[in-house]
Amino acid sequence: MSKIKCVISYDGSGFAGYQIQPGKRTVQGEIEKVLTKIHKGKPVRIYASGRTDSGVHALGQVIHFETDNIMSAASWKQALNAMVPHDIFIKDAMRVPDTFHARFDVVEKEYHYVVSRSKEPDVFKRHYAYHFPYTLDVGRVQRACSCFEGTHDFTTFSSAKSTAKGSKERTLFEVSCEEHGNELIFIFRGSGYLYNMVRILVGTLLDIGQGNMEAGDIPDLFAKKDRRLAGKTVPPEGLYLWHVVYDRVK
Amino acid sequence: MSKIKCVISYDGSGFAGYQIQPGKRTVQGEIEKVLTKIHKGKPVRIYASGRTDSGVHALGQVIHFETDNIMSAASWKQALNAMVPHDIFIKDAMRVPDTFHARFDVVEKEYHYVVSRSKEPDVFKRHYAYHFPYTLDVGRVQRACSCFEGTHDFTTFSSAKSTAKGSKERTLFEVSCEEHGNELIFIFRGSGYLYNMVRILVGTLLDIGQGNMEAGDIPDLFAKKDRRLAGKTVPPEGLYLWHVVYDRVK
Repeated sequence: MSKIKCVISYDGSGFAGYQIQPGKRTVQGEIEKVLTKIHKGKPVRIYASGRTDSGVHALGQVIHFETDNIMSAASWKQALNAMVPHDIFIKDAMRVPDTFHARFDVVEKEYHYVVSRSKEPDVFKRHYAYHFPYTLDVGRVQRACSCFEGTHDFTTFSSAKSTAKGSKERTLFEVSCEEHGNELIFIFRGSGYLYNMVRILVGTLLDIGQGNMEAGDIPDLFAKKDRRLAGKTVPPEGLYLWHVVYDRVK
Repeated sequence: MSKIKCVISYDGSGFAGYQIQPGKRTVQGEIEKVLTKIHKGKPVRIYASGRTDSGVHALGQVIHFETDNIMSAASWKQALNAMVPHDIFIKDAMRVPDTFHARFDVVEKEYHYVVSRSKEPDVFKRHYAYHFPYTLDVGRVQRACSCFEGTHDFTTFSSAKSTAKGSKERTLFEVSCEEHGNELIFIFRGSGYLYNMVRILVGTLLDIGQGNMEAGDIPDLFAKKDRRLAGKTVPPEGLYLWHVVYDRVK
């Protein structure tokens, strides 16, 4: 048996999320269907760096699977791309040591969140950005970003439905916001994330930009551990799993 | 009765083209359904500057319809946008004289065609650009564009299935090609177009860029009036109806 790691992109708008679900079109479901065909009907399970919700996109999701097929990594890329639907693309395939695990070995994950500030909606962006045509003090948003950097208990900024067991402490290495024309791109680099955490952080930053909240309130919000005090969960269409980093040494 | 003109955009990827067809999802069908609702079940017909094929997009398609509803043009824009599906957007609505006709009064139409030259396909562009990862001499393409400008019989560069009666003579005011990163944007401004004409002209220009044809051959191609001598019809996903111009005086 050998282990193959793939870096994949997908347009989340046609999927009921990453994770396989009976009767739903999912990224995992589509890729496992193809792998099962390649293995002559023998089911093959894939493991990802983590799930993404319905409508969430990926530029650099990472998966791995085990196989007894001896084709080269380059052939894996070709074979998979010939068979997966057009809203999934295998950007890279490589052989990895048996010890590699796409989920357990993650060192850092980067998410981007795209907000479109155009006055009117753009039909071509409806699946690819959150349309937010309201007044916003972008400087305020940008200055508040760093308040979320560092190691914190993010309970306030995660879904109450979060099923994460154990510590709610996570470390964000970078939180920033770039302005490109009428788009804002939020960038998050962190060791890990709680459920809906990026979308709630963006919702909170937009609240701050609208003057509904102060950056100075953030330490208190962390301390209160109450989801109801944070901003709303912004919609999935603006969210992109951008990049997953693994330890090179391993 | 009053006449309302609307400028609309739509993402063509979810439509079986502009024109209404039984059992198919079309732009005309969706808008007429909404107008019929607004008119309490009385069917309302809309007239467009022209059809667009399945998968073709529009940034500035123009339609008109007649109505006995007295709401203001601004209210028409709001009412329609509240009811049309999210892949259609009414950019502008205005009252026009009874004599206006969205199709017969067209003075100029502008189309853009987007070619993506990235080496690998981009899942986010699969519906919005023609992926053409092959070697191309962009300078050759750009220099050849002007050979199509002016008044010509475009029989060679239109679908053999074209149903246009009468003259196949059309005037192109501008044919150009801009390079933006790894995208080529072809721009066509003309008095009118034959069926598939823009897509065949782009296919021919790409042939010239690949060295399969010479710009110097174009006069001869025009003269031969034979569709088989031109390049292939490039796919619909790169094509955008960009802008329709009407005579201001009228």
